[in-house]
Amino acid sequence: MPTQTRTETDSFGPIEVPADCYWGAQTERSIENFPFGPREQMPAEIVHALGFVKQAAARVNARIGGLDPEIAEAIQQAAEEVARGDLDSQFPLVIWQTGSGTQSNMNANEVIAGRANERMGGKRGGKSPVHPNDHVNKGQSSNDSFPTAMHIAAGRAVSEKLLPALRTIHARLADQARRWDHIVKIGRTHLQDATPLTLGQEFSGYAAMIEDDIARVESVLPRVMRLAQGGTAVGTGLNAPNGFAEAFAAEVAKLTRLPFTSAPNKFAELAAHDTLVELHGVLNTIAVSLSKIANDVRLLGSGPRCGLGELKLPENEPGSSIMPGKVNPTQAEMLTMVAAQVMGNQVAVTIGGLQGHMELNVFKPLIGANVVRSINLLSVGMESFTTRMLDGTEPDEKRISELMNRSLMLVTALAPEIGYDNAANIAKHAHKKGLTLKEAGLELGLVDEATFDRVVKPEAMLGR
Amino acid sequence: MPTQTRTETDSFGPIEVPADCYWGAQTERSIENFPFGPREQMPAEIVHALGFVKQAAARVNARIGGLDPEIAEAIQQAAEEVARGDLDSQFPLVIWQTGSGTQSNMNANEVIAGRANERMGGKRGGKSPVHPNDHVNKGQSSNDSFPTAMHIAAGRAVSEKLLPALRTIHARLADQARRWDHIVKIGRTHLQDATPLTLGQEFSGYAAMIEDDIARVESVLPRVMRLAQGGTAVGTGLNAPNGFAEAFAAEVAKLTRLPFTSAPNKFAELAAHDTLVELHGVLNTIAVSLSKIANDVRLLGSGPRCGLGELKLPENEPGSSIMPGKVNPTQAEMLTMVAAQVMGNQVAVTIGGLQGHMELNVFKPLIGANVVRSINLLSVGMESFTTRMLDGTEPDEKRISELMNRSLMLVTALAPEIGYDNAANIAKHAHKKGLTLKEAGLELGLVDEATFDRVVKPEAMLGR
Amino acid sequence: MPTQTRTETDSFGPIEVPADCYWGAQTERSIENFPFGPREQMPAEIVHALGFVKQAAARVNARIGGLDPEIAEAIQQAAEEVARGDLDSQFPLVIWQTGSGTQSNMNANEVIAGRANERMGGKRGGKSPVHPNDHVNKGQSSNDSFPTAMHIAAGRAVSEKLLPALRTIHARLADQARRWDHIVKIGRTHLQDATPLTLGQEFSGYAAMIEDDIARVESVLPRVMRLAQGGTAVGTGLNAPNGFAEAFAAEVAKLTRLPFTSAPNKFAELAAHDTLVELHGVLNTIAVSLSKIANDVRLLGSGPRCGLGELKLPENEPGSSIMPGKVNPTQAEMLTMVAAQVMGNQVAVTIGGLQGHMELNVFKPLIGANVVRSINLLSVGMESFTTRMLDGTEPDEKRISELMNRSLMLVTALAPEIGYDNAANIAKHAHKKGLTLKEAGLELGLVDEATFDRVVKPEAMLGR
Amino acid sequence: MPTQTRTETDSFGPIEVPADCYWGAQTERSIENFPFGPREQMPAEIVHALGFVKQAAARVNARIGGLDPEIAEAIQQAAEEVARGDLDSQFPLVIWQTGSGTQSNMNANEVIAGRANERMGGKRGGKSPVHPNDHVNKGQSSNDSFPTAMHIAAGRAVSEKLLPALRTIHARLADQARRWDHIVKIGRTHLQDATPLTLGQEFSGYAAMIEDDIARVESVLPRVMRLAQGGTAVGTGLNAPNGFAEAFAAEVAKLTRLPFTSAPNKFAELAAHDTLVELHGVLNTIAVSLSKIANDVRLLGSGPRCGLGELKLPENEPGSSIMPGKVNPTQAEMLTMVAAQVMGNQVAVTIGGLQGHMELNVFKPLIGANVVRSINLLSVGMESFTTRMLDGTEPDEKRISELMNRSLMLVTALAPEIGYDNAANIAKHAHKKGLTLKEAGLELGLVDEATFDRVVKPEAMLGR
Repeated sequence: MPTQTRTETDSFGPIEVPADCYWGAQTERSIENFPFGPREQMPAEIVHALGFVKQAAARVNARIGGLDPEIAEAIQQAAEEVARGDLDSQFPLVIWQTGSGTQSNMNANEVIAGRANERMGGKRGGKSPVHPNDHVNKGQSSNDSFPTAMHIAAGRAVSEKLLPALRTIHARLADQARRWDHIVKIGRTHLQDATPLTLGQEFSGYAAMIEDDIARVESVLPRVMRLAQGGTAVGTGLNAPNGFAEAFAAEVAKLTRLPFTSAPNKFAELAAHDTLVELHGVLNTIAVSLSKIANDVRLLGSGPRCGLGELKLPENEPGSSIMPGKVNPTQAEMLTMVAAQVMGNQVAVTIGGLQGHMELNVFKPLIGANVVRSINLLSVGMESFTTRMLDGTEPDEKRISELMNRSLMLVTALAPEIGYDNAANIAKHAHKKGLTLKEAGLELGLVDEATFDRVVKPEAMLGR
Repeated sequence: MPTQTRTETDSFGPIEVPADCYWGAQTERSIENFPFGPREQMPAEIVHALGFVKQAAARVNARIGGLDPEIAEAIQQAAEEVARGDLDSQFPLVIWQTGSGTQSNMNANEVIAGRANERMGGKRGGKSPVHPNDHVNKGQSSNDSFPTAMHIAAGRAVSEKLLPALRTIHARLADQARRWDHIVKIGRTHLQDATPLTLGQEFSGYAAMIEDDIARVESVLPRVMRLAQGGTAVGTGLNAPNGFAEAFAAEVAKLTRLPFTSAPNKFAELAAHDTLVELHGVLNTIAVSLSKIANDVRLLGSGPRCGLGELKLPENEPGSSIMPGKVNPTQAEMLTMVAAQVMGNQVAVTIGGLQGHMELNVFKPLIGANVVRSINLLSVGMESFTTRMLDGTEPDEKRISELMNRSLMLVTALAPEIGYDNAANIAKHAHKKGLTLKEAGLELGLVDEATFDRVVKPEAMLGR
Repeated sequence: MPTQTRTETDSFGPIEVPADCYWGAQTERSIENFPFGPREQMPAEIVHALGFVKQAAARVNARIGGLDPEIAEAIQQAAEEVARGDLDSQFPLVIWQTGSGTQSNMNANEVIAGRANERMGGKRGGKSPVHPNDHVNKGQSSNDSFPTAMHIAAGRAVSEKLLPALRTIHARLADQARRWDHIVKIGRTHLQDATPLTLGQEFSGYAAMIEDDIARVESVLPRVMRLAQGGTAVGTGLNAPNGFAEAFAAEVAKLTRLPFTSAPNKFAELAAHDTLVELHGVLNTIAVSLSKIANDVRLLGSGPRCGLGELKLPENEPGSSIMPGKVNPTQAEMLTMVAAQVMGNQVAVTIGGLQGHMELNVFKPLIGANVVRSINLLSVGMESFTTRMLDGTEPDEKRISELMNRSLMLVTALAPEIGYDNAANIAKHAHKKGLTLKEAGLELGLVDEATFDRVVKPEAMLGR
Repeated sequence: MPTQTRTETDSFGPIEVPADCYWGAQTERSIENFPFGPREQMPAEIVHALGFVKQAAARVNARIGGLDPEIAEAIQQAAEEVARGDLDSQFPLVIWQTGSGTQSNMNANEVIAGRANERMGGKRGGKSPVHPNDHVNKGQSSNDSFPTAMHIAAGRAVSEKLLPALRTIHARLADQARRWDHIVKIGRTHLQDATPLTLGQEFSGYAAMIEDDIARVESVLPRVMRLAQGGTAVGTGLNAPNGFAEAFAAEVAKLTRLPFTSAPNKFAELAAHDTLVELHGVLNTIAVSLSKIANDVRLLGSGPRCGLGELKLPENEPGSSIMPGKVNPTQAEMLTMVAAQVMGNQVAVTIGGLQGHMELNVFKPLIGANVVRSINLLSVGMESFTTRMLDGTEPDEKRISELMNRSLMLVTALAPEIGYDNAANIAKHAHKKGLTLKEAGLELGLVDEATFDRVVKPEAMLGR
């Protein structure tokens, strides 16, 4: 099936590109040089962020960089289309390319020039009147544009997806902590029966964990909002006009309505990605929180007849292709798998982060793609888990009460009265003989009935 | 844009599905319950493997499971289409679903039934005459079918992609080891000048590493080829006829022309995925080998004028959007990024592997997807690096010789003659005064000229 | 508190060392340059392996290297003391030193020379008549001696600790699989009730996992047994006599009674440690197996009154400082913590492995120390878990039977008779109304009593 | 060699302990039950923190818990000895014990009681007049005491070791950035020659990275300072008097002179260790920063004659046991190995953190030990690297200038004048023909001499 092509050129010479595409020679070369296929494409979030980069740069270049206003306007409009996602199909490049993201930056430069040229003169693609390097990339280098796009993508995803999802799950858990505060249940430590607490107290712990996660994200966010733009090739800002960096950050802040700033030291921003490693460390912490919560919920909901059975989990789909009627905690499974992936991505980002050489870390696409993917996985995962799992979860109060009253660990309340060693003897005696605690205590003569009844009250063991 | 739908049902009741799709109720529910989008779809390799599973099962069911031959034939033909990839668009489900892969297994069951029903009666979808559970899934459970598909996908990918790619890069490195065996160069240890070796010897080390990697893959492969099928829900094989497991494995071996076998203990295959963890440990080792090789090649090729410059690397694309004429080792960057991702995936697979509960590990899609992705990344990465980097790499013999002759570490050859401490003094003296070794040795009176000339010969220091 | 010292020298000049120590100048410098303290000392296993290295080298040097026989004999005897662990106190150096392990190699050279000098002439330390470099290190470099010691240490630890520990736990699990094969219990998938199996079948899965782990270790072992010795500084073998490598490996094999061999390509052995990365991947897999087994055992033993309670775990110590009578699965906790450490070490080893530069990987002590520690942790952990946990674990047959008979998943046996959808309806009806399966089936008219009684028999659902 | 013993008892019965030890029955049982040996002992920092815990608790118990003042005083004095490290030899227990740290908590309780009893009555050990549980552990559980000790240990180590070490290295780097700001050098991106910058600018990037690391530590510190004490067994505070938690935290703050506070939600503090996971994520980030810096320094210092050679690194010790006169960047090797260990520990801590069950995470010793070890490794590593590597590093200005003037990337300055494509042609022409840039530009007629001389000035390319 022959496709129409047109000829584009770069410093390596001419190359044929599909006639209906906006991209040019360097994008086409990258497609051929890194044949990983569509599953491995650069995340759309980073492409959109490159749209913001080029839009903001065109505005600044028109104002202080001597860029022709008409060309600047055409670039701006095309870049806005990129930022909005209208031209996603024009970004075929994969994550696994040059480590500076140069080819994705050039993909953006070429597509924006190609689209601007179409607008201005009717011909798609090419380098005139709008040139990908001389105009779209003016005052920039891939070395500052691409890390800027990484931070814009991360900053937007954190602000618009991750924090809202954290707040959603937090609100649900805090609400359950309140609603279930009266339900006294057995505590479990070492997976073994322990002293009682309320179901609400248990969930208040989960809510507190997420509250801390929100604080963690907020404490790293100011560093994420810092942009490398203005450093150009090695951090010195060669070929960018004075004031470019600050004016650029202000434009991005305006375009995205998020408080982006210009990074105080551009050398560090090109040569290392410590802040994204730090951010991913926070994502890793969130993944740890979520694993613990999802694991507990599925353990408490295990059953229906041979498990703990304290929680009734919602049924979202048939559970088994062979066991009829089975219902499984699939949202918890999804969430713990997502968390495991994030923990793996943490290592990928770390290994990428540690290997910067001199003026440029060349693991940028790896780092950017993993940060964006981890944010997306956690955000969608949390929203789904909240809606499809937590929202429909209800306590089985009868079962909870039955288990709690069976426990031997209520003996702990006796320790301050009769001493630790005597209390231990009662519990062991009850366990061996299959007695209740009271029976065991009386049989051993270590406590009298009045004391027992006064002291061993689950509802009085809640620390209130 | 309204879409035509038809009604499908499962044990949860009726649900609308797009009229032109083959899938049924459970697939539709999963799309709604796990909204991660197309970037996160279950890898096609696992979908194709499910095609092989259903095809092989239909054959065995026809023979020993009492399945109606006409129905079996229709299932086989539809399953073959799945295995070939013709129905990829019918598999919209994501990795992040139930941890047993039940929904992807049901996706396969529904699509194959839906397609078989179309063939047999003209109506797409539905449960009659071919029923997704009772016929397509006959004698199976997701709990054995999905891990079977994971192993088929891994076994095929290792055999058809990974091993060929390893052999390609090995052949190139071994060839360079031979071709460059006469080029004496400075060795470097601790990144500091050391005693000489030949460029061919250096590359023989790389070739030996890859040779070992091949042996590693081959030593784990027999365990990868073991299939869980026949264990059904918990490993006992309930509802599967006698002999199902062995007959099934034989069919898969025939269909794929690969030596798949039936796993000796099915309980272990459902409850744990240690072999895939082990396989990924080998992938991690390969990633380590490739990182080292790619790092060395880019270090040796650093320059063109201010680096080591011993290798001339091929130019595949323009290197910089701001620095004209720059050429970068982009294939090495791609390969080291790919390697970092594989090392991250290793942790994801490990965390998934360690958390099995009782009869079923419910991190199956996570593990399967990461194993397949890592194999693909390494395979494509190695092929590309070989073709686009190694094939075009040439030694700069002039530069190599110039550097080698400058080195102080040739002094090592003197140590057996004049003792380690004297030799050290010569090297230090030369370094401090900027002298050649011979000048320093004579000046210090620690060696005479004849001895020096006899002993200090780089070409005699190669251990031959 | 003033200590007596004596003066030792190296190429940096004189330095004071404690008079009662055997070590010399370079060891003393390393103590000062890397002040991490005794917690971070180089593992004794590597020190002992250096003893074997020096002993074997002295023998070979006497035979084919022109080393004075008397000196060779003195070196051998001192080296044997090192190998036996008699001189452990003379090895104060830490892991975190030069990345080639040069300082630990010199520590061995100096101590052995210092001890040999004492034997031969009565004076401790010094360089005469036995010189640390010229005699003890003769024909060697740290660059080949240290990785040789790493492999000797790993090979011995695998052979003498890890494999025996794996065989111990395997024997116990296989024995329990046999002894408990008659105990029918509920299966659990997704932590939810599933179809039955026997406790013996469940444990047969664990035994099969460990059996595979043994095979994994055995398949990597031949590569672990390959020694780098003979490569000297960069792999060429400069300054080592012809045949040194092979003769050396044969001596080590004789001394350790283990099948050590000479590595086929020395360049690879110095520049990379892929085999130790591979070996650690296997250790990581074992850690995964053990985590799963220990987790299952503690889940099955959860209770005593509010958990699953199918297993009665042994009591090794009081469990709680506040809850009297509490007994906890502490051996399972120890083993899962040990496993987590090994999984962390896997990443440390991987990161060390990937960063080799040119002719020498300089993360050797990191890699060696982690491999040895992981083997020790796993070996001691498994032995302890077997002895103190598994050996004392007994099934609670009454509880197991009670749970099994409650389950709804016995309905699976009906699916082949009445179809999956009907069977599902019975299970759901029973669950909602709190009925037994038979009651629900009869009430819905989906099965008759005779059929039910014939088909739904747990002991017939075991796939035998 | 028979040792004197005395008999101690716990709820499991009598057991013999060495007569000269302060510890009691539970410590002795743990020694026997977890035979990992002295290399694996619980870090002294956690032991000392337990001293602070017991000291603060005794004070609060005397005031509001009804503890006899004389007993409280004796406990306080003994606990202070523990906190000071005077009784370190009395803490033989290993990391790999019960996952709640109960045994180390009981070790502290027993030793303090044993020492207090000796003080009060002359008899070492025992339970009278001071009882390990009823008095020393009064109002506490291991479940809150041990995590409190983990946070005290981490908070002290961060404040007293990590932050000072970060400030030390930061001051050195910032000083070098200032001192070397006039030295213009070649930049390197992708390890290839790029546009110039000053050596001071390069080091300003390193300084900025460490400055951010300090901010990272400071932003997590408030969460680290929160103590779990007061939650007792499951978070409810059962058996602790009202106000215990707050009074306790105030005492610890007074004793340590650090701003410790009482955690707002005790359930979360027992059940999860997210804050320590977060803290370790920051340690991981610091390890990434340090890897990058140490790698750059050793690359810039590679040579002396066949590498980049821009920095002259200090000589701390002889570098090679075979190559005389060799000097290696051993401090950089130490620091990158330390960093790799921290990155591995990150995964161990993550895996421990994610597996909490219900009311208690039982991976506490693993998490605590890794956090403390990582802080120590980084702190000592940074101090040593600063003192022994950075302090002695000097630029080789002659070499730097020579390399810079050779570079082709100065052509970048021409791009705004003559266009990107023309500039690229000049660079490529110069590279192919071995010309200077000016020669190539004139030969191609793409630039005139006056323009070239005006524009291509390294000192004008620094973005100032």
